[in-house]
Amino acid sequence: MAKDIETTAEQGGGEFSAKDYHDPPPAPLIDFDELTKWSFYRACIAEFIATLLFLYVTVLTVIGHKVQTDPTKNTVDPDCGSVGILGIAWAFGGMIFILVYCTAGISGGHINPAVTLGLFLGRKVSLIRAIMYMVAQCLGAICGCGLVKAFQKTYYNTYGGGANELAPGFNKGTGLGAEIIGTFVLVYTVFSATDPKRSARDSHVPVLAPLPIGFAVFMVHLATIPITGTGINPARSFGAAVIYNKEKAWDDQWIFWVGPFIGAAIAAFYHQFILRAAAIKALGSFRSNA
Amino acid sequence: MAKDIETTAEQGGGEFSAKDYHDPPPAPLIDFDELTKWSFYRACIAEFIATLLFLYVTVLTVIGHKVQTDPTKNTVDPDCGSVGILGIAWAFGGMIFILVYCTAGISGGHINPAVTLGLFLGRKVSLIRAIMYMVAQCLGAICGCGLVKAFQKTYYNTYGGGANELAPGFNKGTGLGAEIIGTFVLVYTVFSATDPKRSARDSHVPVLAPLPIGFAVFMVHLATIPITGTGINPARSFGAAVIYNKEKAWDDQWIFWVGPFIGAAIAAFYHQFILRAAAIKALGSFRSNA
Amino acid sequence: MAKDIETTAEQGGGEFSAKDYHDPPPAPLIDFDELTKWSFYRACIAEFIATLLFLYVTVLTVIGHKVQTDPTKNTVDPDCGSVGILGIAWAFGGMIFILVYCTAGISGGHINPAVTLGLFLGRKVSLIRAIMYMVAQCLGAICGCGLVKAFQKTYYNTYGGGANELAPGFNKGTGLGAEIIGTFVLVYTVFSATDPKRSARDSHVPVLAPLPIGFAVFMVHLATIPITGTGINPARSFGAAVIYNKEKAWDDQWIFWVGPFIGAAIAAFYHQFILRAAAIKALGSFRSNA
Amino acid sequence: MAKDIETTAEQGGGEFSAKDYHDPPPAPLIDFDELTKWSFYRACIAEFIATLLFLYVTVLTVIGHKVQTDPTKNTVDPDCGSVGILGIAWAFGGMIFILVYCTAGISGGHINPAVTLGLFLGRKVSLIRAIMYMVAQCLGAICGCGLVKAFQKTYYNTYGGGANELAPGFNKGTGLGAEIIGTFVLVYTVFSATDPKRSARDSHVPVLAPLPIGFAVFMVHLATIPITGTGINPARSFGAAVIYNKEKAWDDQWIFWVGPFIGAAIAAFYHQFILRAAAIKALGSFRSNA
Repeated sequence: MAKDIETTAEQGGGEFSAKDYHDPPPAPLIDFDELTKWSFYRACIAEFIATLLFLYVTVLTVIGHKVQTDPTKNTVDPDCGSVGILGIAWAFGGMIFILVYCTAGISGGHINPAVTLGLFLGRKVSLIRAIMYMVAQCLGAICGCGLVKAFQKTYYNTYGGGANELAPGFNKGTGLGAEIIGTFVLVYTVFSATDPKRSARDSHVPVLAPLPIGFAVFMVHLATIPITGTGINPARSFGAAVIYNKEKAWDDQWIFWVGPFIGAAIAAFYHQFILRAAAIKALGSFRSNA
Repeated sequence: MAKDIETTAEQGGGEFSAKDYHDPPPAPLIDFDELTKWSFYRACIAEFIATLLFLYVTVLTVIGHKVQTDPTKNTVDPDCGSVGILGIAWAFGGMIFILVYCTAGISGGHINPAVTLGLFLGRKVSLIRAIMYMVAQCLGAICGCGLVKAFQKTYYNTYGGGANELAPGFNKGTGLGAEIIGTFVLVYTVFSATDPKRSARDSHVPVLAPLPIGFAVFMVHLATIPITGTGINPARSFGAAVIYNKEKAWDDQWIFWVGPFIGAAIAAFYHQFILRAAAIKALGSFRSNA
Repeated sequence: MAKDIETTAEQGGGEFSAKDYHDPPPAPLIDFDELTKWSFYRACIAEFIATLLFLYVTVLTVIGHKVQTDPTKNTVDPDCGSVGILGIAWAFGGMIFILVYCTAGISGGHINPAVTLGLFLGRKVSLIRAIMYMVAQCLGAICGCGLVKAFQKTYYNTYGGGANELAPGFNKGTGLGAEIIGTFVLVYTVFSATDPKRSARDSHVPVLAPLPIGFAVFMVHLATIPITGTGINPARSFGAAVIYNKEKAWDDQWIFWVGPFIGAAIAAFYHQFILRAAAIKALGSFRSNA
Repeated sequence: MAKDIETTAEQGGGEFSAKDYHDPPPAPLIDFDELTKWSFYRACIAEFIATLLFLYVTVLTVIGHKVQTDPTKNTVDPDCGSVGILGIAWAFGGMIFILVYCTAGISGGHINPAVTLGLFLGRKVSLIRAIMYMVAQCLGAICGCGLVKAFQKTYYNTYGGGANELAPGFNKGTGLGAEIIGTFVLVYTVFSATDPKRSARDSHVPVLAPLPIGFAVFMVHLATIPITGTGINPARSFGAAVIYNKEKAWDDQWIFWVGPFIGAAIAAFYHQFILRAAAIKALGSFRSNA
């Protein structure tokens, strides 16, 4: 139906005789045919491995940083012996860059249930695929954190296990707001980077999709590590909470599911209804030269 | 008229029988027709949202850094608990990278009244669009800073509110000069990145426009944070001043409008009259092999 | 034979009448013809020079960092006088980025025996070429470290010579595991970046191969410098051990050969048999829409 | 003549019936015709402005860092108030990235007499153009440093003026060696990035020339700031020495001309005679499948 509206609007107001880009049809809500294809299971495996590697590298970086900056352990040189908060932010953003790059052609490169939800709402993936991806991502995150705990067993629990918790001095509303806006930045970038209109639109903005997506994650970490440690990825928060398994991490866990899901939904709405203007075009009250 | 001159010069001195690129006609000064199109309002919304996200992420990073490096608050580990000035510079540059990437196809990706002025002077946008963009950018900046204040209410005013102020020990002339040159670097990069001649010119310099534009912002912040905190974006300085609302920020405010506007105008002049050589070609005294 | 299987599977299950990409035939195991070509020796020289430059820049950065953060040498300003661990991680990742970029067209840009092994297992290079590359890489690494020792003779041995050693508090199993997973991340990225299917597959993930490969190295260094100093490159570990030549570096040396080789083999298996699905396709039990 | 040799070699040993790339003819040694074209003077202006902006941003970053890390000035928070050595390395590398990006289509984007020498030796530019570029670069560097001195007059001389000097504890041979290898890395990257063979050669290494060139500068700074402060650009060292004008900076000045020029010459030789194999092909003793 969304497609019909788009076509009608284009016929009524189009200044070009033909669109120079191709909008794929919306994904079906439920597509049992997918389940018979090896490529579907391969995509789930790729999401599992990618989320595992994501949590392994990033949480290991966080723990390594905390060990080396602990003033009770390192009496000399407490500062330059670690990668710093900036290095942690790079680890999250950089891993998303390379993992989206590597898995984009296999699974679409979500590595994040909030991104999967956003793309499901934008009708890019089916419901079955969305649910399977989220399960694969959560399992991958648990395994990734488990590896870090196995490697850093002395320090893992002492230094917070890479779990997301609300920092002292911030109330739950602030944490939720920070997660909503942070995920909005990420999912908005994902929609912009994968818009089929983009390649047709203007040739001087080439589409190096994984790089801005990775940078979006890097940016949000710079801003919100002091508030929530930065989730914007429910699988990441869930995996760390399962392995760390302390009360505080579980108490705040809902923030890291509700916030990212709301943020992703707003981003999907913003892209589909404001920027792509599907709905408003249908009102027929404006001529569009999109 | 500028177009006529270009064409004449090309006819007189051209070593190629036809130009292999297409200069779009200069934007009309006032184009009421724009006001009837949804795409115009959508572009203003995109500028508003982008500037809001820009200020939200960057000012939150600044406040977070200042809280965590305050030696009166953090007796242990005062140094590596923050992203550092380098992280702040990355936040400004990286956000411009992703926001230009996301909005380039919708609004042109200005996110900065100085860039809008430069592109208006280069006849890339109409006067009406330029004014509307500037208004949207200033409103977005105010909302973005407002969100930070809401999230960090304990610390926002204590730690300077992300407002641009002249640092102690520098006079107003130095601050103005730093803003002029910094904005020149940015707007010069914008003109270079969006030059239609570029894609035709030489194929081994591909056009990944948003990345160098983001890096230009990053570079200028590395250099001038110690002097003015780095404005080079009147909307950014204005939004922070409105929410912070202290006398010093308002006293220096003119620097952050006059400096960027002068820098942008010089960059537009440099690109259009020296590098593209429209005027000098018309003198007919040289043969050009551009 | 692998090729035959692929073709058969494609005929049985193809939804497209023709593949839109071209899989080069697997490299012969032994190809004496290569030895008669100048381009083969040129490729070995390029690998030698690239590995030399890689070790020279990175180990010099490591030694410089350690000199400047030694609290017994620098009583004032012990902290910010160095590039930090983050700078070291950038040095490793950034050098791989530029060296892969420079040598990709000459030798394929391996600069790492583990990458060479992975590509040999994936039948991208012949056995003779693989062995010659590894020899050239190890010789280059020795010369690169030798240069650093010549330049920093006072400090080279005092500050560990850039050699990879297991950090105190970690057992050999952890070190081996960290090397395996780290090399997996790198070689997985290499396979993804050079997959001939990629350019055909989806046009909105452009192939800027050297950048994600460099970032993969950067990321792994952020995570595992506290554990092993990060090898993931046997030539790098071997060259540093030869020049440093202390017992501890030689005792742990096997970790930095066995770990990377296992990691590379797993990555080759994962890419060829899971993601490219050559084997499973042959089972004929699934229809693939790859 | 070099061209004739290439053609002959290609005829003798070519496995392809036609080359799929076009080598531009070598630049004439002296081409008075250039002097009659506006585009030649425009290129010199672009080199002047680019080198001015390069020195302005980088030296301002250096001085700002030194002011803010001076423990006698900043009793609290001496460490996180500056961008650090890592930020300085980014400033040099990042500015080269954006300036090469901006000027590549106007002047070729040298911004460095050593790069100009390398490209002259590789017969990419004429002698007249090479000399004029070097003069423009040196004048630009002087003006850029002059601006920094005007802006930071209190601190410029106190904090070393951004001049290149050999660090205590290193002899002149080490400094010279560091400059030679550092410039080799840079000019080798420049040759690789601008090789006309590249775009034809293999399509999965796209040519984003300015980015690896900027990274090469960043990498060399990480490694050699502790030794010489990193020159690898005679204009940068000369401009800073002229404005700083202290004996030590002038005494070591020759290192920062001789070193870069030797490094650039070796890189030109390596690329033209080893990697492109013009000379050895002519020997006719090998068949090339380049």
